[in-house]
Parts: sequence; structure tokens; C-alpha cells
Amino acid sequence: MTKPIVYHIPVCPFSQRLEILLALRGQMDAVEFRVVDITKPRDPELLAKTRGTTALPVLETADGQILKESLVILRYLDEVMEGDSLRRDDPYEHAVESMLIAREGPFTMTGYIYVMNQDPAQRDTHRDKLLGLYKDINGFLMEHNPDGTFLFDDFGLAEAVFTPMFKRFWFLDYYEGFALPEGPEFDRVRRWHAACMAHPATEQVTEEEIVKLYYDYALGAGNGALVAGRTVSSFAFEPEWQSRPWPPRDKYAGTASDRDLGLVA
Amino acid sequence: MTKPIVYHIPVCPFSQRLEILLALRGQMDAVEFRVVDITKPRDPELLAKTRGTTALPVLETADGQILKESLVILRYLDEVMEGDSLRRDDPYEHAVESMLIAREGPFTMTGYIYVMNQDPAQRDTHRDKLLGLYKDINGFLMEHNPDGTFLFDDFGLAEAVFTPMFKRFWFLDYYEGFALPEGPEFDRVRRWHAACMAHPATEQVTEEEIVKLYYDYALGAGNGALVAGRTVSSFAFEPEWQSRPWPPRDKYAGTASDRDLGLVA
Repeated sequence: MTKPIVYHIPVCPFSQRLEILLALRGQMDAVEFRVVDITKPRDPELLAKTRGTTALPVLETADGQILKESLVILRYLDEVMEGDSLRRDDPYEHAVESMLIAREGPFTMTGYIYVMNQDPAQRDTHRDKLLGLYKDINGFLMEHNPDGTFLFDDFGLAEAVFTPMFKRFWFLDYYEGFALPEGPEFDRVRRWHAACMAHPATEQVTEEEIVKLYYDYALGAGNGALVAGRTVSSFAFEPEWQSRPWPPRDKYAGTASDRDLGLVA
Repeated sequence: MTKPIVYHIPVCPFSQRLEILLALRGQMDAVEFRVVDITKPRDPELLAKTRGTTALPVLETADGQILKESLVILRYLDEVMEGDSLRRDDPYEHAVESMLIAREGPFTMTGYIYVMNQDPAQRDTHRDKLLGLYKDINGFLMEHNPDGTFLFDDFGLAEAVFTPMFKRFWFLDYYEGFALPEGPEFDRVRRWHAACMAHPATEQVTEEEIVKLYYDYALGAGNGALVAGRTVSSFAFEPEWQSRPWPPRDKYAGTASDRDLGLVA
């Protein structure tokens, strides 16, 4: 039988959600993943299927139908795969996890704007904004499960949505020295965050890979765009990231050379 | 038996979604609606229930649990009420309606920023942005149901989400002279829009009510805030909107007086 196909960027957090879902449900082979190289022009056949939009991931069903939006695809797969859903069965509990999931969009946008910021004078503003969102999530978890670790009794749909973003934000730890401050305002979300990061279903990426691939984001260049003075994107497939040195932490000092980054021989 | 309670602003588009759902499913008495006057300080008891947040609507379940976010509440009610759900049963079709629903956030924000704009030089920019979103929806409907009227065969979940916003945007017709241009780029979404506007389950509000209550929005003052030079909000419950004259269309000329707006005797 034909499988659904997910077209995605390597280590994309939005498709990592789908990988986490499949891992949690023990069905890692239920979907075929095909990598798209965003540093090259998009394959015309795929572009025709997606009607010109280039946002990834997209899912192609076994019938050739196209779905976009990672949260839509996540919920779709959770609904159609055999076995118990990851979403909470109880409608109220599902609404609660959906309220938490609704916070993910602003959270993600804030973190990406923060890492891409090029103005040192704005660093604290971005940090405070992200901390405010963490504080809000802390309050949400205190409201719904003050003594627990996850939102409910185990890693669930909300965790599958947020964890790839927590891992992505390794780029903030590295390039911005970001860390959750000590204190009760963050204790509950810190516990949640740590448990999400440590869960075995979420090991698709490493800090080293994120930090190396997202160096160009830290210099303000997203989606495979080239940084001025460079000829190879940090997202390039070759040379592979394992062979490259760790990039410099100081993003505000300007780019290292292709050679120093291990991007050319 | 205790019913769920929805706390809401009069004619709020986000709670109109819930009213449309109840109307379509023939269960208008399944939920109690309680009006909150946003021009007055919030009732401390309600504020305690919602843990300090003032965004409306909120739903209080029969057990006293609180749900926020109109789309979360909408899907929750659709799931728990007896009888057939409004959402599409088929997971792929449900994913399609969810993709359309995902466009609602930017659509709503764009329309509100447009009506609240106070700089005449920016009018075309706001108009073009909204038209771009309509064009995108036109393409989406052409992709999924080119010859139909609704997204599927009848008024459904996506229509329940968008129609209250279409009605809200009467304030753009009135205060900005907004209208969808003629032409094939908008023909499909115009057909959809017209059918949504005309559907009998969506008659909770009238253009007259929207235009009168949202006059202050057109002057840049949202959420019950007072316009400079005025002592009564256009959202005030008294005198009721039926007794007031239609406000002036020219929002860029500055506010009419409380007296001319029929807000004081």
C-alpha cells in the first residue's frame, strides 16, 4: 500500500512534531519522509502539487491529496492512524491541550525573531518577551496540573507541539546565552521543559546539529538565504554538519568565513 | 441540569461563532449566554474564574471549569453536544476545513487594523492587504470546491468561523467604502461570502448594530476605550443602539459628539 509522504526540511521543527507522533505511537514507518533542499530551487513537480506555495512540511496522502500546516497534519495523522490517539480522549482535556497549543504560534515567532535580531540594543527586549511567554505557560501549567510534570499524566499532544521548538531554541542558548532564570515564576515550566527535552521520543535532533545549521539564522538570514560575504548556506547538505566545527557564539561580530565554518574545503 | 455558560461581549464575533453552531445544530438552549459590559470594570468573581485574563468569550462548563479561545470553545461544544458534529467526519475533509480556519487569524487581524487605522495615507495599503487575503481564500476554494458555494456541500465549521468576521467587516464597508472588486480573482470567494452572509443561522447581528457599536473602533479606540473628547463609549449599553442615529461615515474627520451620536440626552 502507498504511504503518505511528508516533504520536509532536514531538522525542521514542524516536521519533527510528526516524527515525535509516529515515535510515540510506535508507527515510525507509517509515513515516508522526503527531504527538500531549501538552498536549491524547488522541484517543479512538488511546486505544482503544492500550488506554488513553498512552506514546508506538506503531506501528500496515499490518494495524492495535499495537506499543509504542521498542526493540521499532526492532528490528521493522529486521527487516521490505527490505535489510540495521542490527543486526550476527554473533550475538556482536549480543549485544555488545545489552549496550550494555541500559545505555540507567538512562542515560536518570538524565539525566531530573537535569534534573527541583529541589533545588540534590542537583545534584552527580545529576551524579556520570550520570558514573558514562558511565565504565561508556567501559569497555565500551574492552573491545570500544578504538581505534575507534563500537562497531563504523560507526554501528549501539547508536548509534541512544543518540544521541537524547545530543541530549536538551543540556538538561543548558544547564540544569545539564553536560560530560564531561577525562581518560582519559572519552576513549573522549567520542570515541563526538562521532561520534554529528555523524553526518548524527541531525540531526532541534537544541539550540535541545530547550532551548526542555524548559524545563518543567528546572522539574520532565514530559509536558506545567503549571508553577505558568504557563498554557502549553513543549511547546505554538503559538507555535512558533522564534519564542520562549531560556529563562533558571537553572532553580533559578523559572519565567519565559509572556510572557517567548514562549508568549503 | 446546569448548563455551560458563555461570558461574552454583546455582538462579539467570537461568541457569534458559538451561537451559529448552536443554531445549526438546533440546540440554541444548550448554553447560557451572559453579557459582560466591557465599558465597566470586570466583575471580580469572573476575573477570579478566568485567573485575571479579560479576553472574552470564556466558557464555564457545568463543572465550573473554564475554557478560553473561541476556536477551542467552538470545537469543544461541537464535540460534546449530542447529535452529529458540524465538523466534517472524514479526517481529510476535516483537515481541509482546518487549513481554511487557520487563515482566519491573519484575516481578522488585518480587518481590525484596517478599521482602526487613523492615517489616510495608509488606507490603500490596508485595503490591498485585506484583498490579498481574500484572493488567497479564493484560490483555496477553487482548489477544493471550484464549482460549489461553500467549502463543502453546505455551511460548515469553516463557515461558522468566518461568517461572524464577514459581518463584523460591515464596519469596513461603511467607514472605508470597502468592497470586493469585480473579476475572476474574487468570484469564488464572493460567492462563498454572499452565501455565508445570507445563511439563516447567521442572523444574530445587523449591519446597523455593527456600524453603530464599532464607531469608536473606526476612530482607533478598541475594547471599550474612550475616544478623546467623548464621555461615553459607542459600546455603552445605554442608550441602546436602536435609538441612536447612524454615525458619520468619515472616520478621518474626527469624532462626532456624544450628543450627535445619541449617546447622551
